[in-house]
Amino acid sequence: MAERLSADARKQALSGIPGWAELGGREAIGKTFVFKDFNEAFGFMTRAALVAEKMDHHPEWRNVYKTVEVVLATHDAGGVTARDIELAKAMNAIAKLTPT
Amino acid sequence: MAERLSADARKQALSGIPGWAELGGREAIGKTFVFKDFNEAFGFMTRAALVAEKMDHHPEWRNVYKTVEVVLATHDAGGVTARDIELAKAMNAIAKLTPT
Repeated sequence: MAERLSADARKQALSGIPGWAELGGREAIGKTFVFKDFNEAFGFMTRAALVAEKMDHHPEWRNVYKTVEVVLATHDAGGVTARDIELAKAMNAIAKLTPT
Repeated sequence: MAERLSADARKQALSGIPGWAELGGREAIGKTFVFKDFNEAFGFMTRAALVAEKMDHHPEWRNVYKTVEVVLATHDAGGVTARDIELAKAMNAIAKLTPT
């Protein structure tokens, strides 16, 4: 099982994934992605969903038209783990290819 | 443009779409769908996204693993319109085909 990252390790990991930040009141990381329109936003979600399913590690996310708010945490570990960082990196890579 | 439904018209329309209810504090309707797993939940979202895009009328929705919380409202009309009822019906029809 992936181990919960310490506050220092979280901070260091976050420095490598632009746009992601720690959530207030909860050990989790989040980012709001904004795209060109619903087509691009849902396209991003679909590609991210395939990655998440393959990792067997799923996001909490909310979509309103061209916006996708994502929260990542590892429930079993009670915090943020390397799996969240990995998924966050993958989402950034997908978003880079998606028109905004 | 679709016209905002009156409270009576909303109530009557809701009686025909099981599981949908008016939201507190906001003129909108909502339903929480629960499926078997992420695959089924995201499959539902994908089919619903295609319908929404075709209608050019999009949901606000949140997905956590096998759960999809949907809120529908027509922003331009400042409330619930026939388009929301139509999308809600389509979502119920899609969910019926999706294992829970």
